[in-house]
Amino acid sequence: MDLKIALAQINFTVGDVSGNAEKIIKAIADAKNEHADIILFPELALCGYPPLDLVLENEFVAENRIKINKIAEKTKDIVAIVGYVRKHDGKYWNAVAIIQDGKIIDHVHKINLPTYDVFDELRYFSYVNNPLPVNVVIKRRSYKLGVEICEDLWDDRYETKVTRELVKKGAEIILNASASPFRVSKIKERIAIIREKVNESNVPFVYTNLIGGQDELIFDGNSFALDNEGKFAAYMPASKEAIGYCEFKDGKAVNVLSDPQPNIIEDLRAALLLGIKDYFYKSGFKDAVIGLSGGIDSALVAALATDALGADHVYGFAMPSKFSSDHSLKDAEQLAKNLGIHFDTISVEPMYESFLSSLEKQFAGTSFGLAEENLQARVRGTILMSLANKKNALVLTTGNKTEIALGYCTLYGDMCGALGPISDLNKLDVYGLSRYINEQYGYDAIPQNTIDKMPSAELAEDQYDPFDYDIVSPLVDDLLINKPIEELIEETKDPELVHRIMHMIRITEYKRWQAAPGLRVTSKAFGQGRKMPLVNHFK
Amino acid sequence: MDLKIALAQINFTVGDVSGNAEKIIKAIADAKNEHADIILFPELALCGYPPLDLVLENEFVAENRIKINKIAEKTKDIVAIVGYVRKHDGKYWNAVAIIQDGKIIDHVHKINLPTYDVFDELRYFSYVNNPLPVNVVIKRRSYKLGVEICEDLWDDRYETKVTRELVKKGAEIILNASASPFRVSKIKERIAIIREKVNESNVPFVYTNLIGGQDELIFDGNSFALDNEGKFAAYMPASKEAIGYCEFKDGKAVNVLSDPQPNIIEDLRAALLLGIKDYFYKSGFKDAVIGLSGGIDSALVAALATDALGADHVYGFAMPSKFSSDHSLKDAEQLAKNLGIHFDTISVEPMYESFLSSLEKQFAGTSFGLAEENLQARVRGTILMSLANKKNALVLTTGNKTEIALGYCTLYGDMCGALGPISDLNKLDVYGLSRYINEQYGYDAIPQNTIDKMPSAELAEDQYDPFDYDIVSPLVDDLLINKPIEELIEETKDPELVHRIMHMIRITEYKRWQAAPGLRVTSKAFGQGRKMPLVNHFK
Repeated sequence: MDLKIALAQINFTVGDVSGNAEKIIKAIADAKNEHADIILFPELALCGYPPLDLVLENEFVAENRIKINKIAEKTKDIVAIVGYVRKHDGKYWNAVAIIQDGKIIDHVHKINLPTYDVFDELRYFSYVNNPLPVNVVIKRRSYKLGVEICEDLWDDRYETKVTRELVKKGAEIILNASASPFRVSKIKERIAIIREKVNESNVPFVYTNLIGGQDELIFDGNSFALDNEGKFAAYMPASKEAIGYCEFKDGKAVNVLSDPQPNIIEDLRAALLLGIKDYFYKSGFKDAVIGLSGGIDSALVAALATDALGADHVYGFAMPSKFSSDHSLKDAEQLAKNLGIHFDTISVEPMYESFLSSLEKQFAGTSFGLAEENLQARVRGTILMSLANKKNALVLTTGNKTEIALGYCTLYGDMCGALGPISDLNKLDVYGLSRYINEQYGYDAIPQNTIDKMPSAELAEDQYDPFDYDIVSPLVDDLLINKPIEELIEETKDPELVHRIMHMIRITEYKRWQAAPGLRVTSKAFGQGRKMPLVNHFK
Repeated sequence: MDLKIALAQINFTVGDVSGNAEKIIKAIADAKNEHADIILFPELALCGYPPLDLVLENEFVAENRIKINKIAEKTKDIVAIVGYVRKHDGKYWNAVAIIQDGKIIDHVHKINLPTYDVFDELRYFSYVNNPLPVNVVIKRRSYKLGVEICEDLWDDRYETKVTRELVKKGAEIILNASASPFRVSKIKERIAIIREKVNESNVPFVYTNLIGGQDELIFDGNSFALDNEGKFAAYMPASKEAIGYCEFKDGKAVNVLSDPQPNIIEDLRAALLLGIKDYFYKSGFKDAVIGLSGGIDSALVAALATDALGADHVYGFAMPSKFSSDHSLKDAEQLAKNLGIHFDTISVEPMYESFLSSLEKQFAGTSFGLAEENLQARVRGTILMSLANKKNALVLTTGNKTEIALGYCTLYGDMCGALGPISDLNKLDVYGLSRYINEQYGYDAIPQNTIDKMPSAELAEDQYDPFDYDIVSPLVDDLLINKPIEELIEETKDPELVHRIMHMIRITEYKRWQAAPGLRVTSKAFGQGRKMPLVNHFK
């Protein structure tokens, strides 16, 4: 088993079949220049992942067929393994084409089709439980390649153990084309499971993962290869586009790399930056508008946006009301200065008063409450959207996972925006990442006072967040992954709290139905991966 | 085959396992009083349909188990067929329990699990392709019952033809427990397919369908039974809760009913009223707030809300700006008077001017455009939300399918609201239903001028909707069901229009991501049944 393999960790764009095809053709040429025998692309490289309901459009599937044939024409003297949506036998397949010498010589179809969380591949694709190695001749030697697609590796919940079957049927190497979305520490799980497969099979394993942001999902790359002894033959950067290479002689890495030491928090930061950047650039926007409250959430979002888009493309606005404390405005201003972003202050008072006066008749005889609190948030949301419309920019929402879960946010108010960069980070993660960013900068870009002060929405007098985040943030996370209630009661010793928090999550589903997409960085984010009924009387 | 069967067309609530169990126990008692031999409940009667990610909660599944056993205890001298979520063999099943004499004597699991459009049952449930009749003894005679669940009937796209298999294996009658959501003319399809099954099998077919609104979905009931000659043995009302009965002697209906003549537009109206009513009442609200523009969409929504909730529970607000025509205010006022709903006028001008003045510095040197148009809509949205918050009411959005598709609506503006009653009706449907409602009322409740005038958003001078709805509305509908582009070009003879409309749908996906839930009345509505990427470069 002597092969040199290219791992094409490329940032494709969903739907851009032509553009992706060009990138694929160029990568094939590059790999040929480097004398690679095989180039392995990520899952559904040609159309981007996940294509969702585009798969139901005839024109889209036809375009996949046309372009895969075009790629085949341009492929000589190398084996290219290219993912695309294939219509065959009247059904749709999550496929890879095995291309050699200008021809598609074989196809492999994904067998284990994930249909949980953000994945719904059984909505689109068929499968057959019959893994077979691909026969190719490279440099006059014939090889059996064990080609599989993403979830085929993660066979725990499936009947068919694809990797094992492939090896049993003679595969000398496993080549996995993946689109595995980022989440914190996922890289460790990937290394662990692939090492396990190598230990079991004693064949090398090459894993190319997609890179790039797609709506809520961030594909972090981190492609790698292990040789038949489980040693690293390649390890590619997190959240960066690149083509990597690995070379095997008798199944052993020609260059053995030392085991990588993933930096969990740096990987998180890099993933968020990639997610922001790609959402903006792939949507045709360069500039972000952010409401700066002086609090930690908006400060972190501003810092991330600055790193993702550049300080000159970030517009921060403080929008104080009579309930805002002095330090709010000061902290917001200091943050903007530290980051070097645009900054202005627009008081919400005139609009707020104008609404109250127009609503006087309708509000007569009622006391200050939810309507008035929300109104302030909605005036702010409207200001930010007006500014974004005028500047052709996108508003970033600043809610974190804990407060979004508890409904501690206003629809059409602070929930206004195109993307929620930290909507899957709980309040403790927000503090942790903020401190890390300050460390990286080497000074307190996010003002220390912002980190130290008590969190408050400042929508009413003397209002502070009524939660002990040290307890509530992890509790919310656990409830969202359906950790059994009795275990949580055991852990917190506070059944009333557990039930109250669960209840708050339940009764605020309607807000999240209308929330902006948010970047997913855990195994259970809000958004497409969580489908809760709005009308729901389960207690 | 001599049996009397009760069809329990009951309005269950998702998650209300206890309450649903009580309703089931009461229905069983009623059916026993009527000397029914069997009572057939809808799909997942015990937990409500669709339970979505509640299925992933241990406590929910446990509650299903506890309550199905409780129901069993209370069931004597009748066979009850009750749907629930069952955990068995470590897997989850969309099941019915066959209950007799205080015991669960058998289970049937759904085989064809729909996973398309709004359905995602493969996300939750397992299946085995082995349909088997249930053996029961009733009045000392043993019967083979062909019990199946909803999609098992609609076997076109599935390998397993459940009905056929059941009859082949001796089933003397088919009992189908369904949760089939309403869409226009769906009742005709149901009758046609069941008649086809009866013609093929020569056994009677009893079909109990769920009734009630659940978020976007409306279950319309319309349960019925055909005898072994395809004659109607029962036919139950659309969109009303009831228990119906059918009696067979030697497989023939004891009382043959004449074939029903569904009233398509009345069924649509009834379904929408049910959808509104259940969304409000099941969420604990009684009152609706609606912005009345004087246009046809808001007029129709107000009329529907009035019929669903009662005139005293509907609050209409006209919110004119300087761009509003005189007739807008007059028509809105007239409508409110005709319907007898609350009405008030709140000019948006003071708030609009207040925003412009606070944004003066930022807007300096720019001309009137999108930001200013959206701003008016957002001031209106904020007014309505403030009123709803104060009155503990829900805002109804008034967008129709055509304008939502084209993005002719403002996020956080006219898109503010809890529910979109007409978001799946295209502009022509809106006119049709409005005329029908006036006919039913016997006078022009919706003012004739509202029906006759040219549609306009009135967000700028002399602005009229730039679409010929006679062409564009059906074109949009066809594009949403993925009718091939070439056919649409053939039909319209206007390739530029087809591509332009398609492009408008594509670039406005981000708005619909954050849209309120809307009542689904066609085979392809926006919302959970349509999953398009936001970043999408497919042309």
